[in-house]
Amino acid sequence: MLTLTVDLGDRTYPIYIGGNVLDEALLAQHVRGRQVMIVSNETVAPLYLSRLQAQLSAFQVDTLILPDGECYKDLDHLNLIFDALLDKRHNRTTTLIALGGGVVGDMTGFAAACYQRGVDFIQVPTTLLSQVDSSVGGKTGVNHAKGKNMIGAFHQPIAVLADTAVLATLPDRELSAGLAEVIKYGLIYDAEFFDWLELNMDKLRAQDAEALTHAIFRACQIKAEVVAQDERESGIRALLNLGHTFGHAIETSQGYGNWLHGEAVGTGMLMAADLSARCGWLSAEEVSRIRALIIAAGLPVVAPQDMTVEEFRQLMSVDKKVLDGRIRLVLVRSIGDALVTQDFDSALLDETLRAGAQLAQF
Amino acid sequence: MLTLTVDLGDRTYPIYIGGNVLDEALLAQHVRGRQVMIVSNETVAPLYLSRLQAQLSAFQVDTLILPDGECYKDLDHLNLIFDALLDKRHNRTTTLIALGGGVVGDMTGFAAACYQRGVDFIQVPTTLLSQVDSSVGGKTGVNHAKGKNMIGAFHQPIAVLADTAVLATLPDRELSAGLAEVIKYGLIYDAEFFDWLELNMDKLRAQDAEALTHAIFRACQIKAEVVAQDERESGIRALLNLGHTFGHAIETSQGYGNWLHGEAVGTGMLMAADLSARCGWLSAEEVSRIRALIIAAGLPVVAPQDMTVEEFRQLMSVDKKVLDGRIRLVLVRSIGDALVTQDFDSALLDETLRAGAQLAQF
Repeated sequence: MLTLTVDLGDRTYPIYIGGNVLDEALLAQHVRGRQVMIVSNETVAPLYLSRLQAQLSAFQVDTLILPDGECYKDLDHLNLIFDALLDKRHNRTTTLIALGGGVVGDMTGFAAACYQRGVDFIQVPTTLLSQVDSSVGGKTGVNHAKGKNMIGAFHQPIAVLADTAVLATLPDRELSAGLAEVIKYGLIYDAEFFDWLELNMDKLRAQDAEALTHAIFRACQIKAEVVAQDERESGIRALLNLGHTFGHAIETSQGYGNWLHGEAVGTGMLMAADLSARCGWLSAEEVSRIRALIIAAGLPVVAPQDMTVEEFRQLMSVDKKVLDGRIRLVLVRSIGDALVTQDFDSALLDETLRAGAQLAQF
Repeated sequence: MLTLTVDLGDRTYPIYIGGNVLDEALLAQHVRGRQVMIVSNETVAPLYLSRLQAQLSAFQVDTLILPDGECYKDLDHLNLIFDALLDKRHNRTTTLIALGGGVVGDMTGFAAACYQRGVDFIQVPTTLLSQVDSSVGGKTGVNHAKGKNMIGAFHQPIAVLADTAVLATLPDRELSAGLAEVIKYGLIYDAEFFDWLELNMDKLRAQDAEALTHAIFRACQIKAEVVAQDERESGIRALLNLGHTFGHAIETSQGYGNWLHGEAVGTGMLMAADLSARCGWLSAEEVSRIRALIIAAGLPVVAPQDMTVEEFRQLMSVDKKVLDGRIRLVLVRSIGDALVTQDFDSALLDETLRAGAQLAQF
């Protein structure tokens, strides 16, 4: 087991990473009151809920099982968490535990941020994506019918348990989606880690515990370093959105769930790399390496055939990252070095968008 | 006009207090983006909305008018604010302006806390209660069917405009309700201010601008001092709840709206004083002065005749201030000096509750 300490002053917390950390009796030491509410979903709860409950016999433990899916990440289902907390009379020393992927984590974290104006919560992410993405940064929230992640709060967990063994029950496609975010950290921040990923992608896809533990540790560490420099997302933190503006457009166009978030980000990162090359930053060889690693991770590299330049532009312009109508993108100067910019030739973006469906031929 | 600076480091903000500060062109200097959303209600908007709009012609100004009443302070109506923001494509540099009483302020502030994980908001409180209570402390939120103010966030405004002239359109009963909170600040923190209130209560009820400006300034200043010492409400800030645990029980028992919050707090403060006297802290003479000032403010001093000790106890035990099942109360050692304690004889509390309906005879 590795322990990564996310240093945030009086909100500093540990991320425990490794095989079977779920069974290491780590939860109880982080619960400061007498009450615990475990929030999970229909898919994950039957697999792991009882293992958490077994460690918490000294507490009042209540559970709430939500339906599984991004489409339930809304205010109505958030309210079910408040209902459960109030029904069971949880007070402000309660601890919420999120057992599940990003949806459960985002909703439970947001519920913890808002319940009685803020209570403790612990993340137990059960997908690779949520282990590397939601474990650090404190972003919580729900979707709105008119926009994804439009309602939320920054609220830090008091501990995170990232168990690599639970990934065994994860569909391959979701493992690949998580690897997209792992690749992202190499691309924006750490060329050596990118090299390591090229060498170890097969092990990661075969769920080698040691390789997964290292990848999760380094991904969370990079995210923590970036976030520590910029907790409220005004500057460098925006680099974490590499591939996301393209990716959100793909997700929205295709309907959430048809493309997984990580799949859309994978293709989106390649589109960002394509535009970076057109801007004269990345070499063709670097774009090829990026493309090869994304393919090796089992991710799509071709945008949906039915998406036009106009549709991409329209969907990209509603993204949160748009300031005053100009599209800002994360682009890549070289592997391991990214920048946020709105100073690119709009015609080059059109070329990338037009090439979107043919990127495989770049 | 007086300006009180609430010192919160990088979230420091001014409260402008005085007659007709609404017309002082103070708003525009605090709007950092190009978009403004004014949230108000059906009662207040016809009176003052156009005066705000007139100052903001340089911005994209959208408005949302909510129904008037505490019963609309819920997640559904909060969502109307998100709808409006997304419909009008407000980005994260938008500024929300809350024009109204506590309900509008709490909801707009909470919407600002959550929209895109946090945007700016300006308070323009139009009741005395919201001028002295919501202007400082950063508490925002909505009610839940199962509990008042159970869902919310701490989110500081970037400026507050407390215009004493708008109180002219406020019903007398609501002015009195606001005075309950003003008295509270004297009772918990400042015996001299309590003396001043005894001398000036008639002027305040007659809406003398100078007296109101002083009272609002001093009340906000005391609250700011208390909150600055304890932003997250773990210690001294709890003193601000004087009268509130009794008061919430009265409000819940009688149905929200039948007793105004400030009215319930007024009677609740006298019940707290009664218990403080039974505990041997307050003298009978001090209780008499407190009772006289509450009466002078036009507030009720007799709890509802139909409330039993059992009902009081049951309703008080669901209050947020309850830790581990024990009722904690704010009691008064002497005028200007309060304490939070759960170390009182439970039988004395019963006596106070039993006397509740007869306090007029104390």
